[in-house]
Amino acid sequence: MPLTRITIRAGKTPEYKRALMDEIYEAMRETVAIKEGDRFMAISEHGEDEFAYGSFLGIDRSDDLVQIQVFWAPGKTIEAKLAMYQRIVARLSDNPGVRPEDVLISVVETAPENWSFGNGETQFYKAADRQPAAA
Amino acid sequence: MPLTRITIRAGKTPEYKRALMDEIYEAMRETVAIKEGDRFMAISEHGEDEFAYGSFLGIDRSDDLVQIQVFWAPGKTIEAKLAMYQRIVARLSDNPGVRPEDVLISVVETAPENWSFGNGETQFYKAADRQPAAA
Amino acid sequence: MPLTRITIRAGKTPEYKRALMDEIYEAMRETVAIKEGDRFMAISEHGEDEFAYGSFLGIDRSDDLVQIQVFWAPGKTIEAKLAMYQRIVARLSDNPGVRPEDVLISVVETAPENWSFGNGETQFYKAADRQPAAA
Repeated sequence: MPLTRITIRAGKTPEYKRALMDEIYEAMRETVAIKEGDRFMAISEHGEDEFAYGSFLGIDRSDDLVQIQVFWAPGKTIEAKLAMYQRIVARLSDNPGVRPEDVLISVVETAPENWSFGNGETQFYKAADRQPAAA
Repeated sequence: MPLTRITIRAGKTPEYKRALMDEIYEAMRETVAIKEGDRFMAISEHGEDEFAYGSFLGIDRSDDLVQIQVFWAPGKTIEAKLAMYQRIVARLSDNPGVRPEDVLISVVETAPENWSFGNGETQFYKAADRQPAAA
Repeated sequence: MPLTRITIRAGKTPEYKRALMDEIYEAMRETVAIKEGDRFMAISEHGEDEFAYGSFLGIDRSDDLVQIQVFWAPGKTIEAKLAMYQRIVARLSDNPGVRPEDVLISVVETAPENWSFGNGETQFYKAADRQPAAA
């Protein structure tokens, strides 16, 4: 159930942007057990005066910085999350060619009853038994 | 106190976008007891190469998918949230005419002291008594 | 480690937008002890039909409303957060000249292992000892 927000500087090609979404999705498939078609993403482009980054932690970032925010429900292990970060970085390095220093990832977790994936239903929370449904 | 982010494919009319905001607000008014004027929203439009969705859970989504993210403080009951999802879907179906399959909703809750609605004050947290103020 | 999202109506100058980012960053430096270069921000601009606000809590807001969302890891004291809100409002009032009523701030906190600031590493969580690293 990830909902993914990708924030970059404006000026990339359609192919580049599509590669960002494709590779992040595949990295998630490989590491955090998301199902086929569980792919909800949007990319926002920002001009020079709408995008800021720094050298925090001594990492040499550039205008190609990709800020990735992932929203999902709790339940992923820490090991799975660590594997996801590394896999995203490796895949984006191959395609479309993002430097590892330019990948910033943040995850926000929110309860199963806080998700409705369509039709107004809570697919991961069944009110009848007042507990989260099996994912 | 909802802060609402709406993410869609580019190409809709001003009337369509205004209807999205109006109907989501009214659905919240009817189900989660938000007050008049508690309406803080923004819509982001994305091109074909900046917007992705899948058939997750067997739901037949389209380019008209509306991704809705709601941020507020804890305290809404699960029943109120379920009612809100259903009401948003029903209202958007009527106006501007979004298919129920194309409504994805996610809620993120964050503590009362994490909100300042203006003037640098924490209207839902009073430091004097070190506990959340009455909403 | 703040990741900051700033949402405004379209139409501001580059200087205005840069001032928003500069002053929010300086206000954070003064109040919540973020390090030099810990500056990750993006501004989104929205048209009239993509941006909504109300008079919630009797505050007289305008089209110049600045919606600020800050994502970081837990650990800031409430006092530091309150100071940050007030400092952001004071600085934006001076430059670029935003009315205090037009500053809305929301903070979302997410665990140290939910952050990777580059290279696929979790700089604030060390798997070896299974506990958060010193910030």
